[in-house]
Amino acid sequence: MSLQTKVSEKENANQKVKRIHSNDLESLWRTIRDEVKLRADFEPIMSTFFYATVLNHNSFEGALSFLLASKLDSPVVSSMAIREIIEEAYQADPTIIFAAETDIKAVRERDPACKSFSTPFLFFKGFHAIQGHRIANWLWNNDRHSLAFYFQNQMSEKFGVDIHPAANIGQGIMFDHATGIVVGETTTIEDGVTMLHGVTLGGTGKDRGDRHPKIRKGVLIGASASIIGNIEIGEGAKVGAGSVVMENVPAQVTVAGVPAKIVGKLSGAYPAEEVDQKF
Amino acid sequence: MSLQTKVSEKENANQKVKRIHSNDLESLWRTIRDEVKLRADFEPIMSTFFYATVLNHNSFEGALSFLLASKLDSPVVSSMAIREIIEEAYQADPTIIFAAETDIKAVRERDPACKSFSTPFLFFKGFHAIQGHRIANWLWNNDRHSLAFYFQNQMSEKFGVDIHPAANIGQGIMFDHATGIVVGETTTIEDGVTMLHGVTLGGTGKDRGDRHPKIRKGVLIGASASIIGNIEIGEGAKVGAGSVVMENVPAQVTVAGVPAKIVGKLSGAYPAEEVDQKF
Amino acid sequence: MSLQTKVSEKENANQKVKRIHSNDLESLWRTIRDEVKLRADFEPIMSTFFYATVLNHNSFEGALSFLLASKLDSPVVSSMAIREIIEEAYQADPTIIFAAETDIKAVRERDPACKSFSTPFLFFKGFHAIQGHRIANWLWNNDRHSLAFYFQNQMSEKFGVDIHPAANIGQGIMFDHATGIVVGETTTIEDGVTMLHGVTLGGTGKDRGDRHPKIRKGVLIGASASIIGNIEIGEGAKVGAGSVVMENVPAQVTVAGVPAKIVGKLSGAYPAEEVDQKF
Amino acid sequence: MSLQTKVSEKENANQKVKRIHSNDLESLWRTIRDEVKLRADFEPIMSTFFYATVLNHNSFEGALSFLLASKLDSPVVSSMAIREIIEEAYQADPTIIFAAETDIKAVRERDPACKSFSTPFLFFKGFHAIQGHRIANWLWNNDRHSLAFYFQNQMSEKFGVDIHPAANIGQGIMFDHATGIVVGETTTIEDGVTMLHGVTLGGTGKDRGDRHPKIRKGVLIGASASIIGNIEIGEGAKVGAGSVVMENVPAQVTVAGVPAKIVGKLSGAYPAEEVDQKF
Amino acid sequence: MSLQTKVSEKENANQKVKRIHSNDLESLWRTIRDEVKLRADFEPIMSTFFYATVLNHNSFEGALSFLLASKLDSPVVSSMAIREIIEEAYQADPTIIFAAETDIKAVRERDPACKSFSTPFLFFKGFHAIQGHRIANWLWNNDRHSLAFYFQNQMSEKFGVDIHPAANIGQGIMFDHATGIVVGETTTIEDGVTMLHGVTLGGTGKDRGDRHPKIRKGVLIGASASIIGNIEIGEGAKVGAGSVVMENVPAQVTVAGVPAKIVGKLSGAYPAEEVDQKF
Amino acid sequence: MSLQTKVSEKENANQKVKRIHSNDLESLWRTIRDEVKLRADFEPIMSTFFYATVLNHNSFEGALSFLLASKLDSPVVSSMAIREIIEEAYQADPTIIFAAETDIKAVRERDPACKSFSTPFLFFKGFHAIQGHRIANWLWNNDRHSLAFYFQNQMSEKFGVDIHPAANIGQGIMFDHATGIVVGETTTIEDGVTMLHGVTLGGTGKDRGDRHPKIRKGVLIGASASIIGNIEIGEGAKVGAGSVVMENVPAQVTVAGVPAKIVGKLSGAYPAEEVDQKF
Repeated sequence: MSLQTKVSEKENANQKVKRIHSNDLESLWRTIRDEVKLRADFEPIMSTFFYATVLNHNSFEGALSFLLASKLDSPVVSSMAIREIIEEAYQADPTIIFAAETDIKAVRERDPACKSFSTPFLFFKGFHAIQGHRIANWLWNNDRHSLAFYFQNQMSEKFGVDIHPAANIGQGIMFDHATGIVVGETTTIEDGVTMLHGVTLGGTGKDRGDRHPKIRKGVLIGASASIIGNIEIGEGAKVGAGSVVMENVPAQVTVAGVPAKIVGKLSGAYPAEEVDQKF
Repeated sequence: MSLQTKVSEKENANQKVKRIHSNDLESLWRTIRDEVKLRADFEPIMSTFFYATVLNHNSFEGALSFLLASKLDSPVVSSMAIREIIEEAYQADPTIIFAAETDIKAVRERDPACKSFSTPFLFFKGFHAIQGHRIANWLWNNDRHSLAFYFQNQMSEKFGVDIHPAANIGQGIMFDHATGIVVGETTTIEDGVTMLHGVTLGGTGKDRGDRHPKIRKGVLIGASASIIGNIEIGEGAKVGAGSVVMENVPAQVTVAGVPAKIVGKLSGAYPAEEVDQKF
Repeated sequence: MSLQTKVSEKENANQKVKRIHSNDLESLWRTIRDEVKLRADFEPIMSTFFYATVLNHNSFEGALSFLLASKLDSPVVSSMAIREIIEEAYQADPTIIFAAETDIKAVRERDPACKSFSTPFLFFKGFHAIQGHRIANWLWNNDRHSLAFYFQNQMSEKFGVDIHPAANIGQGIMFDHATGIVVGETTTIEDGVTMLHGVTLGGTGKDRGDRHPKIRKGVLIGASASIIGNIEIGEGAKVGAGSVVMENVPAQVTVAGVPAKIVGKLSGAYPAEEVDQKF
Repeated sequence: MSLQTKVSEKENANQKVKRIHSNDLESLWRTIRDEVKLRADFEPIMSTFFYATVLNHNSFEGALSFLLASKLDSPVVSSMAIREIIEEAYQADPTIIFAAETDIKAVRERDPACKSFSTPFLFFKGFHAIQGHRIANWLWNNDRHSLAFYFQNQMSEKFGVDIHPAANIGQGIMFDHATGIVVGETTTIEDGVTMLHGVTLGGTGKDRGDRHPKIRKGVLIGASASIIGNIEIGEGAKVGAGSVVMENVPAQVTVAGVPAKIVGKLSGAYPAEEVDQKF
Repeated sequence: MSLQTKVSEKENANQKVKRIHSNDLESLWRTIRDEVKLRADFEPIMSTFFYATVLNHNSFEGALSFLLASKLDSPVVSSMAIREIIEEAYQADPTIIFAAETDIKAVRERDPACKSFSTPFLFFKGFHAIQGHRIANWLWNNDRHSLAFYFQNQMSEKFGVDIHPAANIGQGIMFDHATGIVVGETTTIEDGVTMLHGVTLGGTGKDRGDRHPKIRKGVLIGASASIIGNIEIGEGAKVGAGSVVMENVPAQVTVAGVPAKIVGKLSGAYPAEEVDQKF
Repeated sequence: MSLQTKVSEKENANQKVKRIHSNDLESLWRTIRDEVKLRADFEPIMSTFFYATVLNHNSFEGALSFLLASKLDSPVVSSMAIREIIEEAYQADPTIIFAAETDIKAVRERDPACKSFSTPFLFFKGFHAIQGHRIANWLWNNDRHSLAFYFQNQMSEKFGVDIHPAANIGQGIMFDHATGIVVGETTTIEDGVTMLHGVTLGGTGKDRGDRHPKIRKGVLIGASASIIGNIEIGEGAKVGAGSVVMENVPAQVTVAGVPAKIVGKLSGAYPAEEVDQKF
């Protein structure tokens, strides 16, 4: 498939995505604004933060680019310059925004300690890290590798989350707590996955080819679990906390242990949505 | 029990605590000052830090509020404003200060690499994270949730320690090295517990009720261990490094493995005081 | 052996090391400059960073001291003052520079996601943490403990890597991803070791003597593995991801599990060079 | 005249201004870009500044809002938030941009030490102060007095230039060197005026009405001159350096002294364009 | 008079001052709070500044020490440490606070562009400079010359106002616009004086004794005027803008010119209260 | 004269200067160190500043480059990069250091409020501005105009002192208080000159040639005086405060007034050394 064709297909996909999501996004944006307005009234010592980040903007993406830029700047690249890069990415590929929308809803639904949409938006570094990666990935795909590595390093220092810019990450993703997460270069994470802190999606050895895990839809990966090598974790599977997985895992099973073995079968909702790390 | 009664009881408790501890606190404070004076004389390039943080103050809480504020400020809330919040908390609930005193002594006694009281006070992020949480928890209990989340997020970014502001943490706690520690919303950690870095006290699923561990007195939890669900780790128990615990653990046993099993019995001093992660 | 004799021996060793390495170092330095020149031309928004850090300098150590100082400064000690300390260390003990050279080559050879020498130099916090420790260790050995603890704390906050300044670390070391690594006071890490993120080289209990692991040449330690106590991991051994090791490990075997057991034998190149965490 | 009518008239004027100026502005912008590109190639240590400020933008106003925001931010209001305010002003009243264009050309033509358009744009605080005032004045006219006072205070601290936000300033203005300039609340400065540093356009007493000078077109005011009270300095007049003017000055004369007297007549080009402070 | 006696007299004076002023101060404080509350409601992008600086405090001095510390900090001394120094000064000598109260009322009454008490408090660097000097002077009188020079230098850089810490300044002082004001070591400025920007109260030559002006009550000094030498400007006199005064000036006359001569007589209110620089 | 010949002559001159001055410089450096040691002992809250800036260095130029870099950095160019530029200038042209030595002695001798050498070194922005200009001038002469303009702009913002980088300034110069000083492109200031704040050495009109004043040895220029045009102020002359000079001034006379006239004759020591602005 030629690059030209790929670009056209992507454009078509974007249009379609845009039609479907836009009403929802507008509604999410209004909800976040309402929540943040209450916060600003209640905690005036943080009021400038709430206004500058959210209430001054008339779109979700305006608020998100502002927030991310304030997290990812450094003496190397200023917040204003970072923000322009983020806005460029959003314009070139609007699916990044819709993915953020889906992510934020996923956190709201799955995390019982999260009782609003504005809490992950403003305060969860797992959400911030995924959104930062989406920009780094866009830069990488546009051959801006130095800037992509800057984003990776900045997020590794700031959030303790180390995602190679080339990694392929879907929508509706939750990185809960997030400290210590590592995602390798040739990893794929499909839609609707939940990963806890300390999870490794690592490679094997020095082969330069495809060497990292493929995580299928709806998978739940418990805290401090390691998944190593170009293996597949099947749709709706669960990896127990502290486990080490080095072989393919079928769909809808629970694996656990070091090394991990199948310890149970699953049915019903995706475990990523239930977020029960027990096995 | 009415809120009024609860407040009165707390006040009585505070008075009692204050009487018992105050001589000890004064003595700790003098020791820290003496140690820091030696440091300032020996390493003048850091002298302003030692004076501004410790030697310029005439109380332990004055030094601690200064130190914490310098760690937890950001463009969102300035160090001076953070410090006023911390001082307000210390005045409203003096037990926070006595808990800090007990924590610092715990580290000094348990960590063989720590040969003074001023080392954890000035340089150990585990100690800083616990003290930051004590403020976040006070804010949470006073319904200032936005500011409590700010503290949580700031500590997660700065220390890599993610403690829900609602979590209930006792006195004499040591978080050794601390990176990657996660403590969930309905967790209880009783007095005298030692936890190493990478420890998870996590929840199960989307139930919004009581879903996190209860860690009883004197428990030791080894590096990278995960304890999941509303289970009890009995008084004086030990959880081996890298273990995953999903069931109640009786008092004074050692558990280890993925999933964890009882691998030994304990007697004598609390394992939290011995800090031997082996099993 | 008297201190005097030890110093003389060290000086002789330094001379020898200098003769052997200097041509190689010059060649590495030229390569890094060439790579960074291309980056600067390609990504002008980061150009000042590339020039200020690398291209403005005429030696590898000038660039490295600049980079480290920009990572390790704080309101406590300014970047210019930190840089002077680093330069003092490099002059007093030039082997620190040659160790950095060997480290950077190790990363380039072992990490398939790393296609240049300048990428770890500029962007990998594992590399930065090791180089920061080399300075902290020099300070510690010169009895400047306060400043050494400042470095340790700064690196723990910035990189999530907590290395006691007294720990003894060889050359050609790779800390991959690095978040959560903990290295205790009496640890020895010999040349050519690879450790992934989340690795603990921890102590046992409150004994103040020699209580941390000795990692021999060419060992590979997988992600989130814990090695606990004054035990030896033999030359060319491999520790599987997520394992907990509490006993001596012979040379050239793979150990894994919680607790770890021997699961295989190795031959050929050191596993640290192959970086295959599977077992 | 009703507010509605005034707004309509302003809109018409804006349209007209836009038609006339837009080609010129595009040409100025291309020239600035070309100049700054040469600077970036020649002085790579400043390259990020040149790219982030100018070369990354595709319009003069994008570059100007970036530059001003980087000069006027503080812990009170961040650069990103300042920039949004500036962009809002530019959109609401595009004549602000055209005034900036005319100002920059005035400096280029009048200052013999200024051999390019990019020099005042990047480096002359007199130019920065006028552009900052244009925003403060727009805020004032929109009843945002607190923010307007913030701008005034910030410019007084940063540039040493104190202009009341209500002051009425035309186009093609040069504030040369600028330190110590003071412009009062009811001042009018018409188009094409040149003022040197240390100039005061001050009021008389406590009357709250119209109490500051009216400076007509093409006037030149020499260094450290003071003009006091609601008096008129006639078109094309010159005020000698160090003079104190307290009475109306006719058009096309030179006044000088303390108090100032007419010392000469002028003809030909406006003295503001000749910038000869001698009398 | 012995030092002991002087101190007692000062204490008595302080008590007396305190009795007289305290009701007024409380009333001023309430007014400032009310004004700032309105500002915060109206301009939420600055709300954190208004809360952190004013509304979070329950006393005028708490707000003033917060504001000054945020203006005078630097990498040399942090805002929190500066604030402690300011608070120490306020406690040791409460007349500093009452002087600030009188100053702020003077600005409110004399400056027609100033329609509230909170405007000078928050935004006028002339007010900030005088309050900064009051701290520097207290430090100087307590023999802390290095810190006093730091304050002087910091105010000279930040405000463009250079006051020797030893200079003796009364109450009810207005420095309007303030840029370029210089006040020498042995200067006395009595109560109720108004000085505009660019005013010099300078010395003569290298004599180390008393060599600077004595400005009596109610004097008005116009913009850019220079008063040089140990001369007296009599009560209620006016010095015209741009004048140079080198001889004693009787009470209630206007002097002007270079060198200045008597150009008029005054009666009625002090010229400092009328603020009419004309002559 | 060919460039080659000019360079050789400069080198010879440098050698000669170096021989003469080096003992004196060493002695000045020891005195400054002794003074600063006392300050550090007496005011520990500023101790890090005293050590980092002065006491940690073993040469006057090391301390001066550190101090200047901490004053002139910004997000555009970091302190470490600025310092390297300053050190490059000092190595290329050591007369810059000897000029600094002569300047500092001049301030010590002429300013009665200055009782030590370390006070101007650490705290006088007039001294800092001259030393900053010496670097800007070296950059200008090496055709690095962008960086030279950056220095000029930074000093104009930070110190309120605006000196064109091309201006030619001798040794033993004192800029007292310094706010508002302006020095034009083709100005020459010979050795031993004293200028007070608010002094303008300005040009006339738009001629691009030699259009600024030539100030001969030992001249004293009083506060807020303006000297305009390519005129000569003869050796040992004095310009009264607030004067405006537009014609040549003979040696050893006092001029004053607007416009300035000869008002007296001088003999004995240079007026720059007596610093008596009276006329």
